[in-house]
Amino acid sequence: MSVWGITGLPEIAPRDDLVAIIAGAVTTQAATDPDLALQSGDILVVTSKIVSKSEGMQVPAAEREQAIAADTVRVVAERVHPGGNFKIVETRQGLVMAAAGIDMSNVPEGVALRLPADPDASARALCAGLRQRLGMNIGVIITDTIGRAWRVGQTDMAIGAAGLQLTDDLRGANDANGRPLHVTQAVIADEIAGAADLVKGKTTGIPVAVVRGMGRFVRDLDAPGARSLTRTGDDDMFRFGSAEAYRLGYEAAMAEIKAKSVKQDEMP
Amino acid sequence: MSVWGITGLPEIAPRDDLVAIIAGAVTTQAATDPDLALQSGDILVVTSKIVSKSEGMQVPAAEREQAIAADTVRVVAERVHPGGNFKIVETRQGLVMAAAGIDMSNVPEGVALRLPADPDASARALCAGLRQRLGMNIGVIITDTIGRAWRVGQTDMAIGAAGLQLTDDLRGANDANGRPLHVTQAVIADEIAGAADLVKGKTTGIPVAVVRGMGRFVRDLDAPGARSLTRTGDDDMFRFGSAEAYRLGYEAAMAEIKAKSVKQDEMP
Repeated sequence: MSVWGITGLPEIAPRDDLVAIIAGAVTTQAATDPDLALQSGDILVVTSKIVSKSEGMQVPAAEREQAIAADTVRVVAERVHPGGNFKIVETRQGLVMAAAGIDMSNVPEGVALRLPADPDASARALCAGLRQRLGMNIGVIITDTIGRAWRVGQTDMAIGAAGLQLTDDLRGANDANGRPLHVTQAVIADEIAGAADLVKGKTTGIPVAVVRGMGRFVRDLDAPGARSLTRTGDDDMFRFGSAEAYRLGYEAAMAEIKAKSVKQDEMP
Repeated sequence: MSVWGITGLPEIAPRDDLVAIIAGAVTTQAATDPDLALQSGDILVVTSKIVSKSEGMQVPAAEREQAIAADTVRVVAERVHPGGNFKIVETRQGLVMAAAGIDMSNVPEGVALRLPADPDASARALCAGLRQRLGMNIGVIITDTIGRAWRVGQTDMAIGAAGLQLTDDLRGANDANGRPLHVTQAVIADEIAGAADLVKGKTTGIPVAVVRGMGRFVRDLDAPGARSLTRTGDDDMFRFGSAEAYRLGYEAAMAEIKAKSVKQDEMP
């Protein structure tokens, strides 16, 4: 597997044609190094930031809090800090992350940037456009930088995807000894997103990377998107932060007791 | 960045010398393809399974439940299923994961395998041995396959590491526009672990991969290990599953009410 960044992309503005811009940068790069020309089976990994910028998801920095509220389906956990509240929320994209993914780095002063409204749709449009323009069968992953429970820091994960199988579902498969691999479903889309981050970085201004060697996962455009990687609802054992769930339990018990005592008071 | 698997490793048994075995396989592979000879700055990514096997962490499959209990510091969340209980626990290695990482795939019939007791120590021993034997400055990551809250499936993460800087700490750094990147601490050790999983796979019998191109993160042997990537204690907003925390809150309220009513009964 080899992974490299696409250089020479300009700063992206609303209504920019990302297909044309990325295809142009790829062609320019290939002119100086033919090994970097795209091939069928390559996967383009695109930082959500430039997708948001091209889709006009900029809001004034002063409206950041309102934008977080607008993109929040529900608050998962919250901590009050002297510098302001830290909120982990479920976003309308189905992601659980800090501040609904609204970011103020790598954007001009005074601007905050929302995530693409439908990153899978954005990925499909990019993938369809690039496949047609380049005449080859590539896959597209749109990434964002996301924290994890129980681990420090963040890694890049797939928040949108098109033309790819996203997991290597080994449930039912056998291991190297021929024994069943019961629970393993390797999320290769997230592993590819992280691999691409290693060459993109956050301070280099390289928002797109190519991953070569994973062509066995390239599929038709109608393959399920990254929304299928989110786990919400009944399967989610961490639907609330511990403090929030504790408080809900405490309040439920108090409400029960109160209802009982009202009932007793009502007795003749 | 380029990533490839090391082929030709034998099945590993207790007391096998992993340094000698891996160095031998690398040399054999380099004989057929000189590009695959290791270089200073390369990172070796080793599946914890073969480390556990060489360290004799096998237990009889019938003692799997006792082994899970022995490796568990505390239960984080639990679900009762018809097929048995599903437990997410904090392990003695500081990891939060299902079944304390005890696994029955890719091991002989009738055997379960515990994680290495101290994966950072294992990584340091491997790294020191390989650096000495090969005469070059490589890094080592030991990986395991771990599920995440709010996402389906699993990815490989770093559970042990040596000779490497594990995060690209951008707190205080500036983005491409010169603005501060407040909260970003990219966990490159986990991104490298995931990248290596893409070429190792779980059904191929390739437990070691080489990642080339990340030499800027190679450090001295005394750099902090992967234990520093775990987040437990006060910083952990998801110390318990939602159902478990809810129950704790409910029981606390009931105990409070009971204590109050006992006090009232004791009044003259």
